[in-house]
Amino acid sequence: MALLDLFTQEIQVINTGMTAFRDDLARGGVPVIQVDWKPPVGVAGEALDIIDDNIAKITAANEKVLDIILKGKPMLIGMGVALDTIPGMKKNLILHSGPPITWDRMSGPTRGAVIGALIYEGMAKTPEEAEKLAASGSIEYAPCHEHSAVGPMAGIVSSSMPVFIVKNETYGNQAYCTLNEGLGKVLRYGAYGDDVVERLKWLEKVMYPVLKKAIESLERGLDLKNMIAQALHMGDEVHNRNRAGTSLFYRAIAPAVIRTCEDRATAAAVLEFINGNDHFFLNLSMPAGKATLDAARNVDGSSILVVMARNGTDFGIQLAGTGNAWYTGAALVPDALYFPGFTKDDANPDIGDSAITETFGLGGFAIAAAPAIVQFVGGTARDAINYSMTMYEITFGENNMYQIPALNFRGTPTGIDVTKVIAKNITPVIDTGVAHKKPGVGQVGAGVVQAPIDPFMKAFEGLAAKLK
Amino acid sequence: MALLDLFTQEIQVINTGMTAFRDDLARGGVPVIQVDWKPPVGVAGEALDIIDDNIAKITAANEKVLDIILKGKPMLIGMGVALDTIPGMKKNLILHSGPPITWDRMSGPTRGAVIGALIYEGMAKTPEEAEKLAASGSIEYAPCHEHSAVGPMAGIVSSSMPVFIVKNETYGNQAYCTLNEGLGKVLRYGAYGDDVVERLKWLEKVMYPVLKKAIESLERGLDLKNMIAQALHMGDEVHNRNRAGTSLFYRAIAPAVIRTCEDRATAAAVLEFINGNDHFFLNLSMPAGKATLDAARNVDGSSILVVMARNGTDFGIQLAGTGNAWYTGAALVPDALYFPGFTKDDANPDIGDSAITETFGLGGFAIAAAPAIVQFVGGTARDAINYSMTMYEITFGENNMYQIPALNFRGTPTGIDVTKVIAKNITPVIDTGVAHKKPGVGQVGAGVVQAPIDPFMKAFEGLAAKLK
Repeated sequence: MALLDLFTQEIQVINTGMTAFRDDLARGGVPVIQVDWKPPVGVAGEALDIIDDNIAKITAANEKVLDIILKGKPMLIGMGVALDTIPGMKKNLILHSGPPITWDRMSGPTRGAVIGALIYEGMAKTPEEAEKLAASGSIEYAPCHEHSAVGPMAGIVSSSMPVFIVKNETYGNQAYCTLNEGLGKVLRYGAYGDDVVERLKWLEKVMYPVLKKAIESLERGLDLKNMIAQALHMGDEVHNRNRAGTSLFYRAIAPAVIRTCEDRATAAAVLEFINGNDHFFLNLSMPAGKATLDAARNVDGSSILVVMARNGTDFGIQLAGTGNAWYTGAALVPDALYFPGFTKDDANPDIGDSAITETFGLGGFAIAAAPAIVQFVGGTARDAINYSMTMYEITFGENNMYQIPALNFRGTPTGIDVTKVIAKNITPVIDTGVAHKKPGVGQVGAGVVQAPIDPFMKAFEGLAAKLK
Repeated sequence: MALLDLFTQEIQVINTGMTAFRDDLARGGVPVIQVDWKPPVGVAGEALDIIDDNIAKITAANEKVLDIILKGKPMLIGMGVALDTIPGMKKNLILHSGPPITWDRMSGPTRGAVIGALIYEGMAKTPEEAEKLAASGSIEYAPCHEHSAVGPMAGIVSSSMPVFIVKNETYGNQAYCTLNEGLGKVLRYGAYGDDVVERLKWLEKVMYPVLKKAIESLERGLDLKNMIAQALHMGDEVHNRNRAGTSLFYRAIAPAVIRTCEDRATAAAVLEFINGNDHFFLNLSMPAGKATLDAARNVDGSSILVVMARNGTDFGIQLAGTGNAWYTGAALVPDALYFPGFTKDDANPDIGDSAITETFGLGGFAIAAAPAIVQFVGGTARDAINYSMTMYEITFGENNMYQIPALNFRGTPTGIDVTKVIAKNITPVIDTGVAHKKPGVGQVGAGVVQAPIDPFMKAFEGLAAKLK
């Protein structure tokens, strides 16, 4: 289908899924033809019947969830050190991306990042010492997502790390994320060499106090919702492309940095670090998504995702309607563009909390706004449009603030609906970086990946069980 | 035609213009059908014959011109005060936008800006005094374009004004442009109140020394070609939308400002001024275009434009193949989106050197990269694509560095070819702001306007006369 036809097409639907969708569409006056069909994925027949019987309740709950998502207003209001800032943080606790996992099941990059964090914290002197400590049982592990936090790739947060504080001004809840380290050999990709630890120390000792002071000097903080909306008009999807978001953040913060940092060389160094790292804004778009989606948790009956995250071993999701339950499946190895010298054999399975951007209707869902990403991995602007268009098939609504210029400023597909994922057998697309499967190496590629279907099947059945 | 078809369509041409085009296309293996036809515009039959007879020479010259344009490398290398920097500048000389014009024929906004400049220079105390002096004969006027300079809207440059120095690194020539004042009541729109003059003084006394020092501290200057290429990937067309360009400039200059400006409050104020003015980069994209196109002047036989500019009364163009000759016609009043309280009756005819961006293959020619502009004036993303697609009809080539993401990263249509404009009766589209026709008021709207055909007819005949 040609792009411009999409602007004007008449909606015509052949419904091959659950009858509830037919009824729903028919009520809306949309012509629909019902075809007898079972989802190609093996969800239990009983679950299908329960969802079908409860579709009115689910729809009402989803409307509430979508409303909360659209009304969310994430503001960057400050910074703090993880131990003093993140609820439940402890000195011997390490947060990681994705669903819960124990040391013995952790992937290479996650282990590498844990090793780096223990050295950074001064709890170990060598990688060998760190590995021993990590496996000793005296270190506790928990998902970032269970502490109002998010972390890209390995997503490791330890007690001394500085974090951004993002507040959902509408609902009062907060989310947290570390500072982005840049590209190359960095902790989040599982590297833990001296340079990695030194950079983390520089972020803590030099960058953090300067940025904290600058952010706190702003009367109202920084409006991340507005910045994300602008960034989408400027070629970002705020997951794998954050050049515009980083620029807008930089424009806003630079005068405050100058006014509040007495040492000019330090102020310049802080700004040069941000200017040299186009991914800097990722660690703001992620907590913006987290703060927005956390407000939509615990809406009884809702089939909309509030979390989609990977720990490098498992891919896990959480629904607004199923409390704190995780539904997991094996994380897949991405078909990606690999850097020279690396192949898919080197790649770790999909990893990171950054899929919070897709859960929020951005990232791969908004990739039509950022065709340069698709071009980078060998595709065309049309592929980017196709990815975004397909995501409207599995989302409950559209954003009223975040727009895709190439789709004539249509709102981004928002609110991943597990019933649609199962009914259509379409899983979310996720933009992602790819880490080496061994600890200590770093990034080996980037690409656009498809989520596995298993966690969605389990979530579908989990929601049915709750509605029974 | 649907956008995505454009990516793959077979080229099929019905040639209704000069036979030379048919021959040209046929040589390239393109299927072409010749239809007997005369251009609907009244160029002399003799001129048509001469151009037709010389098409091989014209094409060879145009290839040379395109090559010079594509190889141009505009770098921001410094700043200076107009009197000491712009060749031929004098204390009693005022530069203006567009082709040459005398005081008695100047439009309201140009007169307003001249009045403001004379007050700013201390040569008059009141608008009445300034008007008298302006008309007295002791003030000389000349086009910016004849002094390697460009100016947006009224384009007034007087001797004390600071200007950017942009060097075409490949060919060694330089171009100059003043600092952008922001929106609202500003000199370039013909306003001359105390606030306008005070802002000009602030730019000269505070901003200029800080920026000059910062730019000079950079080892190689700033690569404007690279910034423009990036900005096109970020929703700018660098004429009416410069948010990304401004952001990229700001990112690059801020650390240098901090390092070189000892007074932190001043440094912050300078950056805040830039951050508050998304048009700041226009006054860099314009001299980038000027420096690039000036290197392509005086290529015998070329039908490609090196200047397209308006003084608010006349619309003028210059060709690479016709030396310093101006070909002019009446500037048209834009069909634009007018600000509340204003109508087309308030509008001055089209004004400004900013059409150098279109002459350079950007602005309206690249508007598919910046659909937000078209949306702002009531159009759709499709309209933006149509504008750019049509401009490929009248350009000699495509840029190899500046790309339009929505056209699958196709190079921008580059090198306006007057023979194509006449053969197809398609004139360039230009993004523009609209000034009030009376001096002292300011901006009243913005829109996308079509160039008048007259200057192109005269240029076509002028080129024929040179080739005779």
